[in-house]
Amino acid sequence: MVVAGPLSCSALIDKQDVGKPISDLYPHLKGFCDMPIIDPEDPKCPDDFHAAFFATPDGVGQRQARKYLEKGIKVIDYSGDFRFNDKEIYRGYASRIGKPQEHASADLLPASVYGLAELHRDRIARSSLVGNPGCFAVSCILGIAPALEYQLINPETIVCDAKTGVSGAGKNPSPTFHYPARYDAMNAYKVSGHQHVFEIETELSRIAGQGIAITFTPHVVPLCRGILTTIYGQLEEGQDIERIKDAYRSFYGGEPFVRVIGPERPVNTTDVRGSNFCNLSLNVDDRTGKLIVISVIDNLVKGQAGSAVQNMNIMFGLDEKAGLLKPGRYP
Amino acid sequence: MVVAGPLSCSALIDKQDVGKPISDLYPHLKGFCDMPIIDPEDPKCPDDFHAAFFATPDGVGQRQARKYLEKGIKVIDYSGDFRFNDKEIYRGYASRIGKPQEHASADLLPASVYGLAELHRDRIARSSLVGNPGCFAVSCILGIAPALEYQLINPETIVCDAKTGVSGAGKNPSPTFHYPARYDAMNAYKVSGHQHVFEIETELSRIAGQGIAITFTPHVVPLCRGILTTIYGQLEEGQDIERIKDAYRSFYGGEPFVRVIGPERPVNTTDVRGSNFCNLSLNVDDRTGKLIVISVIDNLVKGQAGSAVQNMNIMFGLDEKAGLLKPGRYP
Amino acid sequence: MVVAGPLSCSALIDKQDVGKPISDLYPHLKGFCDMPIIDPEDPKCPDDFHAAFFATPDGVGQRQARKYLEKGIKVIDYSGDFRFNDKEIYRGYASRIGKPQEHASADLLPASVYGLAELHRDRIARSSLVGNPGCFAVSCILGIAPALEYQLINPETIVCDAKTGVSGAGKNPSPTFHYPARYDAMNAYKVSGHQHVFEIETELSRIAGQGIAITFTPHVVPLCRGILTTIYGQLEEGQDIERIKDAYRSFYGGEPFVRVIGPERPVNTTDVRGSNFCNLSLNVDDRTGKLIVISVIDNLVKGQAGSAVQNMNIMFGLDEKAGLLKPGRYP
Amino acid sequence: MVVAGPLSCSALIDKQDVGKPISDLYPHLKGFCDMPIIDPEDPKCPDDFHAAFFATPDGVGQRQARKYLEKGIKVIDYSGDFRFNDKEIYRGYASRIGKPQEHASADLLPASVYGLAELHRDRIARSSLVGNPGCFAVSCILGIAPALEYQLINPETIVCDAKTGVSGAGKNPSPTFHYPARYDAMNAYKVSGHQHVFEIETELSRIAGQGIAITFTPHVVPLCRGILTTIYGQLEEGQDIERIKDAYRSFYGGEPFVRVIGPERPVNTTDVRGSNFCNLSLNVDDRTGKLIVISVIDNLVKGQAGSAVQNMNIMFGLDEKAGLLKPGRYP
Repeated sequence: MVVAGPLSCSALIDKQDVGKPISDLYPHLKGFCDMPIIDPEDPKCPDDFHAAFFATPDGVGQRQARKYLEKGIKVIDYSGDFRFNDKEIYRGYASRIGKPQEHASADLLPASVYGLAELHRDRIARSSLVGNPGCFAVSCILGIAPALEYQLINPETIVCDAKTGVSGAGKNPSPTFHYPARYDAMNAYKVSGHQHVFEIETELSRIAGQGIAITFTPHVVPLCRGILTTIYGQLEEGQDIERIKDAYRSFYGGEPFVRVIGPERPVNTTDVRGSNFCNLSLNVDDRTGKLIVISVIDNLVKGQAGSAVQNMNIMFGLDEKAGLLKPGRYP
Repeated sequence: MVVAGPLSCSALIDKQDVGKPISDLYPHLKGFCDMPIIDPEDPKCPDDFHAAFFATPDGVGQRQARKYLEKGIKVIDYSGDFRFNDKEIYRGYASRIGKPQEHASADLLPASVYGLAELHRDRIARSSLVGNPGCFAVSCILGIAPALEYQLINPETIVCDAKTGVSGAGKNPSPTFHYPARYDAMNAYKVSGHQHVFEIETELSRIAGQGIAITFTPHVVPLCRGILTTIYGQLEEGQDIERIKDAYRSFYGGEPFVRVIGPERPVNTTDVRGSNFCNLSLNVDDRTGKLIVISVIDNLVKGQAGSAVQNMNIMFGLDEKAGLLKPGRYP
Repeated sequence: MVVAGPLSCSALIDKQDVGKPISDLYPHLKGFCDMPIIDPEDPKCPDDFHAAFFATPDGVGQRQARKYLEKGIKVIDYSGDFRFNDKEIYRGYASRIGKPQEHASADLLPASVYGLAELHRDRIARSSLVGNPGCFAVSCILGIAPALEYQLINPETIVCDAKTGVSGAGKNPSPTFHYPARYDAMNAYKVSGHQHVFEIETELSRIAGQGIAITFTPHVVPLCRGILTTIYGQLEEGQDIERIKDAYRSFYGGEPFVRVIGPERPVNTTDVRGSNFCNLSLNVDDRTGKLIVISVIDNLVKGQAGSAVQNMNIMFGLDEKAGLLKPGRYP
Repeated sequence: MVVAGPLSCSALIDKQDVGKPISDLYPHLKGFCDMPIIDPEDPKCPDDFHAAFFATPDGVGQRQARKYLEKGIKVIDYSGDFRFNDKEIYRGYASRIGKPQEHASADLLPASVYGLAELHRDRIARSSLVGNPGCFAVSCILGIAPALEYQLINPETIVCDAKTGVSGAGKNPSPTFHYPARYDAMNAYKVSGHQHVFEIETELSRIAGQGIAITFTPHVVPLCRGILTTIYGQLEEGQDIERIKDAYRSFYGGEPFVRVIGPERPVNTTDVRGSNFCNLSLNVDDRTGKLIVISVIDNLVKGQAGSAVQNMNIMFGLDEKAGLLKPGRYP
């Protein structure tokens, strides 16, 4: 958990590696942030800051957020704990991730907001509790939302074929992500059973005004950073690429971190690697009447920490782009 | 072009690198094959062999195969030159690859066979001219054929989302495949416009007994070897995973190089890397009524050279598995 | 531990994954070896075979080998347990690997042989107990031995700068070899403190007829397979590249798995990847009077399992090349 | 060539891709820099700026720099054209790179400065013409300079074993750096013959006050970014790790971009990836009396563009760290 005060980091709180400077764990930070990690139970752990980021697994935020909120500290949670307003949906989600349980702070849910700025900017600005979205969800929702909003596609035909780099799986080593097992390898996993489907369908259903079920297949490919989701939907009558481009550009007009790109240009995860951008490439398959959207993000930035900063900026009335308006790194 | 005599290689024929031992170009072959490359125009170029493999670009085989065939030499061509019996379909294909032209040996087409053994074994056995299939096509056709044969899915709803390693692009360097541009990068390309769609649709239409149009999106990911295609189709009424497994196992019963795998097991390109196998993982998304087949091959083996050897074995009445029944290499 | 009977595998013995088919753990073996793993304590565990391979950590072989040897089963151990004839040297080695202890079967050491065929073929042929060499040691010893045998260099000036792919670290995941931490990363480790130095110096001292101390720096680079060691030594007076090539070719004349290469040709780990070869590239820096040998192997083959098979072949009077004379895999 | 005006880029000048926005070539720059490329011969090409960066091959700067210098524009050249004050040394360098020739602007050489700020800060501050150093040279010189300055090692015993990622070879594709040939591969090249040896030896000789010849072996490993050079030197009598650490810390005291690290800490190219830092890990091999320095940089930053910006800052009296004091990117 990272806690931010005014313009600076006040404390790095964790149960592991207590006392170690963060730059011992991440040597690239040497000289930039050498703050030691402090235990949340430590009486010296500060609590006079403005925002708390819970970069914690499912189940932590719902138990720990309340004490911060009660002190007037705004909370941004990275897990699924506050991505759903509805405790019923949360129950389904909890089962899917193998932790079937009631939400430990169900009373907080109605005031929480799903932290995708492009959809909920106003509510985020008024909220003290944001559920930062899942990385796959960001890439899917941003890719599909305009098509539903403008009724470009049949909402019952959506297929999301998502490919992620390995950093999406976090920093804990496992046999699956051991270098010799992962280089020169790719696989699908959790076919039709990934937990991010819950938040994707919740958001899309809201936009469409009807219950939406999608087909979602995640894959792991040997990159570190990057999600590319290829989204398919059956076009409604009378649509063509120009109307589709207009719709997407209208939907995202003024958005600082979404770029809409026509079929004439290539799109690659390297275009957004290391940045907070989501690039959306629009294509039509005339032969089969399909809209094909290629959505690319950096899963660690727009797919996680970048969105969290964007949300913080909005929650505090700062420039939404503060700290985020940077090109990616290439090569 | 590689030419095989009885049990051994008779000549390595190329216009480039003439006179150089193949092991100078590929040092891992040192001591195993040090034969120098010979120019096809060289009067000393032998022609007393049994089979000629044209590992050549589009346009070469259709101009050079005849002289071999007339001498009774069987021909296996790696390009699109002999993948279509029909000169009209070839014309469309030729336009797609940017070489619009009539086929230079259209009279040979009726006797040529599409070299996918699992579909055309008997015709391959009787033929002297085989068009070896494209790597994407192998992964797609093997994944879809049983679903059409047994009418498991609506044939108008097929989506193939294909991911390939970089070796599929051949050995010529390009900015796109330069290591610093390709590591940690992925992209879609030729969205709805890849040339392999022609042979996929030709074969699928034949099986379905009706014209089939598919949505096909190829992607490049940073592996060397491997194609993973995720295939989606809307299930017909009354299908379930057990019936689907039965259908696929029935279709591929006795096939030496196709493994049908249920949803309970993972599937990874490393399971087939370096081997001639195609593994098919069968899954059903009950919520949306979709069949999801994950098809994996090594694009350089079952996707190209392995299929060519398999075809040669069949054409000469040899054990179809000769030289091919090996596990892949791991890790 | 893998146990081989006449021409086939009799049992796969392990304490982990007991009862699972090996092809569940390594799916590329499906249909080739589906034998389940058996516990060594299981009364049904067979013991009527000819050779036992201990692919086990340090400490296992020295406790378990005796019971096999007493039944007349030849033993090849992959760890450091039987790499040293001398219990004093073993004690130093044991301290270095963090397991300070006396050897549990010191009485077996005098009859054990260091399993590097190029140096000890005759003794291996007469032995029942072989300590298979370390991967770094193979690359270093083969690169230096002729230079000491023919007194080409000052034996007090040897520097070995070794680079290994990640598979050399085994299959257990760790933060260091987690894909996101390892891609696009390289580091030195155990600078001047790697345990393989013991066996390298033991062998080199024997050849030189004097105690040899080397400087050895191992590095990890983001490959899966391959060790490249760059070896530096100060040339004695009067040496030149031609005399050096003669010496190395004389030393390795007739060796089936060592290739000596002059400075005019490039050398790459891909030249030996997947094969049992060691390629040695000889170079002289005239300006500083140094011999520079580039030694490349596949750490999993010549650096481990390939050497083990080579040793087995020798121990049983089989063709030394049986099962091993294959080119590597490229690309 | 990139030309910088006051606080901003005035023109992007090239002979290739004229008229294209730079963000078409490098899409990650979209919205950050969309300036089109202009031909140097174009009359509209501006020339009212303060500094010109020649990111051009050898031979361009020596022909084109004069016209900028005559207008009072300061020049930073990335090639070897201005790395040597002495036309004789340049002649040797020119032969080594296969372009034997006299320097086209030899009269400019005496006023040029070798652009390694840690050695030549004062002269860079007074100069209008800086030869930006080679990437290997930065890693070697920074690693060795204190050892010579404080006479820690015998200057005749230096070995530099350098490993670079592929981006060091530039952006032009070649068979050697084609992804399928480069992944899972490593090799040495130009053994004892790399052109950067000239500038390394020139600088080291100056420090040592005597002619220094080093043994330098470059290697390519499959990373994108990063150089790790392992430097060996025979310690003089009476040295130990504490004295060595003192010497290095004294030499680099106050340097903003050099970190001196003792043997107790690991060092990895990821510690500096994406940053302008050089990390130096100091080690002693007591058994052989050797100093071992592990020097890591990002070849594209401290090894090239970062050093260029650092030099520009010094030349214009700006804060030397402006635009550069950032942590790297991880993972």
